[in-house]
Amino acid sequence: MGIETKSISIEKVKTSRIDQIDFNNLAFGSVFTDHMLVCDYKNGAWELPKIVPYQNISLDPSSKIFHYGQSIFEGMKAYKDKNDAIFLFRPLDNHKRFNISANRMCIPEIPEDYFMDGLTTLLKLDSAFIPTNAGSSLYIRPFMFASGKGFHASPADEYKFIIACAPSGAYFAGEVKVLIEQTYSRSANGGVGFAKAGGNYAGQFYPTQLAIAKGYNQVIWTDDTEHEYIEEAGAMNIFVRINDTLITGPTSDRILDGITRKSIIEIAKKEGIPVEVRKITVTEVVNAAKAGTLKEMFGAGTAAVISPISAFGFKDTDYALPKLDTPYAQRIKKIITDIQYNKSDDPYGWRYKVTN
Amino acid sequence: MGIETKSISIEKVKTSRIDQIDFNNLAFGSVFTDHMLVCDYKNGAWELPKIVPYQNISLDPSSKIFHYGQSIFEGMKAYKDKNDAIFLFRPLDNHKRFNISANRMCIPEIPEDYFMDGLTTLLKLDSAFIPTNAGSSLYIRPFMFASGKGFHASPADEYKFIIACAPSGAYFAGEVKVLIEQTYSRSANGGVGFAKAGGNYAGQFYPTQLAIAKGYNQVIWTDDTEHEYIEEAGAMNIFVRINDTLITGPTSDRILDGITRKSIIEIAKKEGIPVEVRKITVTEVVNAAKAGTLKEMFGAGTAAVISPISAFGFKDTDYALPKLDTPYAQRIKKIITDIQYNKSDDPYGWRYKVTN
Repeated sequence: MGIETKSISIEKVKTSRIDQIDFNNLAFGSVFTDHMLVCDYKNGAWELPKIVPYQNISLDPSSKIFHYGQSIFEGMKAYKDKNDAIFLFRPLDNHKRFNISANRMCIPEIPEDYFMDGLTTLLKLDSAFIPTNAGSSLYIRPFMFASGKGFHASPADEYKFIIACAPSGAYFAGEVKVLIEQTYSRSANGGVGFAKAGGNYAGQFYPTQLAIAKGYNQVIWTDDTEHEYIEEAGAMNIFVRINDTLITGPTSDRILDGITRKSIIEIAKKEGIPVEVRKITVTEVVNAAKAGTLKEMFGAGTAAVISPISAFGFKDTDYALPKLDTPYAQRIKKIITDIQYNKSDDPYGWRYKVTN
Repeated sequence: MGIETKSISIEKVKTSRIDQIDFNNLAFGSVFTDHMLVCDYKNGAWELPKIVPYQNISLDPSSKIFHYGQSIFEGMKAYKDKNDAIFLFRPLDNHKRFNISANRMCIPEIPEDYFMDGLTTLLKLDSAFIPTNAGSSLYIRPFMFASGKGFHASPADEYKFIIACAPSGAYFAGEVKVLIEQTYSRSANGGVGFAKAGGNYAGQFYPTQLAIAKGYNQVIWTDDTEHEYIEEAGAMNIFVRINDTLITGPTSDRILDGITRKSIIEIAKKEGIPVEVRKITVTEVVNAAKAGTLKEMFGAGTAAVISPISAFGFKDTDYALPKLDTPYAQRIKKIITDIQYNKSDDPYGWRYKVTN
């Protein structure tokens, strides 16, 4: 299987921009590699993928991406081990979820070989951009959007699938303080919250800016009916540790089926950490904080891997989390990143070597 | 007040494309006028608007519009009377709502004079594109989106405000058959349903395609908790007539404050039609259909003005609406369009003349 790699046309840059990148001071997702993968959907079919120099996209003003938010994305990372071998982490799961998102947004699915062969060809070409400093990685952004034209509010007839890559530092600087949201909501029952659809993210900006103005970094999203069930942390899944038990909410049409989330659940099980996948109420978390049994909270996602929460705010009161010597967050993050950077065995079969 | 019109720079097309347009066979929003208005937000401020030939937009692949759905739009129309004078309908209300949408999506507000002077200058320049055949009009699409770069899920630092125009025929061909949605939802409490945010529309495509596959044209959106309260009809507000009373749901953070909707409410009051703004349940509508007291249902919005519903489906049963001699839909639509096309007095002060 796989498309013939020779059928991916490659147009290389004349001059690499790699010398312009300060690998010791990388922000998140703000500088890009030399090339990108582009694939167009026209006349009911995907054309062959092309690798071209990273460049602007030119679109008609009536392209539906500008008007109707018909877009999806994935977040992935590439890692280098000490021998400069390149690895991905569960990339087939990203591809699978990409198509789940695509279906919900009426965007045509991208075949697995277009996604995987396109990605690995691009990574090999731009491998010099994969950072090797601790905490840095190459963030990979596959995305698809409606390029088809017209002001009619209906699915487009043309789409673009693009993979662009950004050598990146940490997503958050240090621990985050979060606010449990009691007014705004991220997603509806029967909505698109489970998809990595563009509009899910823009809708979070305003409530998040309000929280930032109050001194928090992120919002903890709750259900839209009672604001009583804890759903996500910003753009991450959320885990809560009460006593020694790690708890995360079940996936649903409101909650993203996070790859880091499900990896953490599997690791916890193997490590003998009691783990429960069930609904978590705000009341339970606040009561546990008051009783001293709330030991940890953390966000989980590809960009930040695991993002420890230092405190949460709820109805004008802040609740600090204790500082533990060996929190689950730190222990599990090390297990994940050691697998990602090929520093440990991989009993789960998650590491994916990008071979030459 | 108003920016100096001379400060709007104008670059005219060398050759007009107007001869390529078949004004007798116009689809909705698929051919465009010669020019467009473009205004860039950079370094914390809006630059002066420019009118340029209608042309492609060039954007970095990391522009946040592609990833996070940070975009809003408005829908307006321009009309010509028999003397070729140009009119708009309540345009200041569109500007006001545009900024309400902008605030919710963390997009900077556009000043009223940039919006209005930019729009009227553009309309005068492209006035030859305003159709005069019955049922046709110039559809105007003001939109703003995040052009700023970066893969960090946070508001962009640069935006584009654009107005493009499309000579258009009817949005729907004839009456529509709708399905009362019992699984999917359009918006959450505390979400962005009241804003004309791009993502609200893409989220509707999949459920609408499922309804189309079952023989319906559109979905009637219900609340996301019980699917019992009727909220919108596709991308329009919805009105129901039971006996002689016209009913529409109250606006909320889930329902768009439609300009056609509020115009209909005012017209009904003035015409002595009993009108109620209150929640409508699915049960009430189904029971009225069974009892023969459900006389009309129609969608209301700028694109379609008033779109009569011929039948609705609910849980595998279709309910046909009666065919009336003089339905409210027809009577009110004539009052609105007569005002829009300057065929009648305008006791409401809604008509806005685009003066030379």
